[in-house]
Amino acid sequence: MTINNRTFQVPPGVKDLLPKEAKEKRALEEKFARILAQWGYEEVVTPAFEYERSLTVDSGETVINQLYRFFDRDGKILALRPDMTTPIARLVATRLQDEQLPLRLFYLANVFRYEEPQAGRQREFYQAGVEFIGDNSPYADGEVIALAVKCLKEAGLNNFQLAVGQVQLINGLMAELNLSGEDKKQIHLLTSKKDLVGLEELVQSLNLSSENQDRIMNLSQFHGQEDILQKAGKFNVNSQTDKALNNLFQVFQVIKAYGVEDKVFIDLGVLRGLDYYTGIVFEGYTAGLGFPICGGGRYDNLLGKFGYPQPATGFAVGLERIFLALAREANKTAAELSRYLVKGNNLPGVLAKAESLRNEGSQVETDLSQRNQAETEDYCLAKGITLVEV
Amino acid sequence: MTINNRTFQVPPGVKDLLPKEAKEKRALEEKFARILAQWGYEEVVTPAFEYERSLTVDSGETVINQLYRFFDRDGKILALRPDMTTPIARLVATRLQDEQLPLRLFYLANVFRYEEPQAGRQREFYQAGVEFIGDNSPYADGEVIALAVKCLKEAGLNNFQLAVGQVQLINGLMAELNLSGEDKKQIHLLTSKKDLVGLEELVQSLNLSSENQDRIMNLSQFHGQEDILQKAGKFNVNSQTDKALNNLFQVFQVIKAYGVEDKVFIDLGVLRGLDYYTGIVFEGYTAGLGFPICGGGRYDNLLGKFGYPQPATGFAVGLERIFLALAREANKTAAELSRYLVKGNNLPGVLAKAESLRNEGSQVETDLSQRNQAETEDYCLAKGITLVEV
Repeated sequence: MTINNRTFQVPPGVKDLLPKEAKEKRALEEKFARILAQWGYEEVVTPAFEYERSLTVDSGETVINQLYRFFDRDGKILALRPDMTTPIARLVATRLQDEQLPLRLFYLANVFRYEEPQAGRQREFYQAGVEFIGDNSPYADGEVIALAVKCLKEAGLNNFQLAVGQVQLINGLMAELNLSGEDKKQIHLLTSKKDLVGLEELVQSLNLSSENQDRIMNLSQFHGQEDILQKAGKFNVNSQTDKALNNLFQVFQVIKAYGVEDKVFIDLGVLRGLDYYTGIVFEGYTAGLGFPICGGGRYDNLLGKFGYPQPATGFAVGLERIFLALAREANKTAAELSRYLVKGNNLPGVLAKAESLRNEGSQVETDLSQRNQAETEDYCLAKGITLVEV
Repeated sequence: MTINNRTFQVPPGVKDLLPKEAKEKRALEEKFARILAQWGYEEVVTPAFEYERSLTVDSGETVINQLYRFFDRDGKILALRPDMTTPIARLVATRLQDEQLPLRLFYLANVFRYEEPQAGRQREFYQAGVEFIGDNSPYADGEVIALAVKCLKEAGLNNFQLAVGQVQLINGLMAELNLSGEDKKQIHLLTSKKDLVGLEELVQSLNLSSENQDRIMNLSQFHGQEDILQKAGKFNVNSQTDKALNNLFQVFQVIKAYGVEDKVFIDLGVLRGLDYYTGIVFEGYTAGLGFPICGGGRYDNLLGKFGYPQPATGFAVGLERIFLALAREANKTAAELSRYLVKGNNLPGVLAKAESLRNEGSQVETDLSQRNQAETEDYCLAKGITLVEV
């Protein structure tokens, strides 16, 4: 039998990590484990599969549709875990009810979702994350946001931003509108995707006051530093929205106390897809990647589904996505190291221009020689250098 | 709804690791990763599931019956990996054919087998292991055995032994016997289990010379240090058995060169259950645990099934089993720290006895006082001390 090696490819959406990738993954995981332990978080490990009913206790349709299901030999339905937040809530409710609160837990794990594979979206992928359980204060949310910033920085990323929102703001707005559940869901989805065209079409088809139309259309475009909260009064329509805006303000004070506000901005359109979020939500973005590299937020209802009502907040970081972002930053750095030759008769002018290009991160040489123009151009052409004349 | 926390237990055979256990697991994995890298092995990671046909390319019935299977959405059959040796052989054949040989690869991974859960036997369990690919010399087998010893020692185990056999010895013997495949399989199984009663019953029901009966009955009892190979001549019936014994001798020379022969003995009855072994096989045992803590051997046919025929050898260590063995050693150490009181009129005799008991690891006090016999006995009884009179 002739063997065609293509016979033995792995299924779509999962992959092997060869030595170089496996080594990078191990180094990053060890680094995360060290940082998270330093912040007082303790690791837990849950099974790769468990009963489907445990994994979906508070999940929306999307997660349920993405499960890998199979049968245990006693006929019960098992599934591969699609995330770690739900299994850890289950673990805490079933095994750690006697522990003093708050609990700070972390994990490094593979999770499984049936999705169309594409860059940054695999069917088996690796996450690091934390769950901060038993504390409903803005401090807890601020801590996990600051810790997410710390992890991304320590991973070696420079160009990233966390966008922070509060789901009770849109929930409060919706409570004022006399809309069907389906319409509310659509507004939620389109806002989350920042699909302004779709949103406008939907909003105009509904029977809304122009004020409320304006609120919905503007929510997803409302982002900036702390000061934008002062301009967010128009979204404040009831006690729910008032509490949401107030909470966002308080969490931002904690973020400032941690000194990471340069990496964080407020974005009222961040809602997160998952159904269990109940307060602060956030997502991390890096230039050029079209998907978040991390995400998280407050989920105060999940543990109650397992019989142990406790407030909780946390985040997860995607390891492959960090590696994609790092590769992108490295390429950008290499590309930005453009080479210039600065030429001219005016020495101070030449040196000043060279200095300014170097400060932008470029490789710069200066030329005061009497080499003629053609020779200079040949030289630059041969060496891939951009000629700058001053 | 009242929630019964038992509703959300994990399925049988899988488990959560709470912070203490997760921390121990991470520390052991980091230690193994460091040692294995120091020995020139590079980590690889394979998917938790892949196509069933890849995972079972050279598997026996047992493995096939223990698979967790499910369907990909295109209808193809997936399965959770039951071990790492086959996925790594697949990875090497499909991705690393251009690499220089030999390849030294390691892994730290969870694997999945449907078995009846019991101590040391879970349905999801964690392994560390190596695969040494592209070298068919006794040196390669000796290296992986020495490395297994190193790993177990560094894990903190003291009381363990690796039993080393060679499957071609029984294969060579079988080739001389005119038996059905089923009978050969039964002899193999009963020898492997050291089931002498079952073996005798079977052997007597077969039409065998008394010499061959004796060979089969004795194989599983033939174990000891290198010198037993000199007495193994009676198992040498053809060129296959001759090569097997010779190979065992050569591998033992490598083990001696590594200076780990005190942790290794030869056991001709070690065969390993898995169907892919083709030469040296070994299992690690520790006092009081009824299952191996590690196992491995040579499997020269597996990579050929993936279209890249290469000799290979390796081992896997079970992390939970190491923790069970460590817990047992810790208990035993505490229990063995027996307390003695050595009493007598002869000072040199008392001190010599005390010294000898201390060298055995006990806590020993001496008593030269004129305390009477009844008082001494009361004292010892009250403190749980064994009285030794010299």
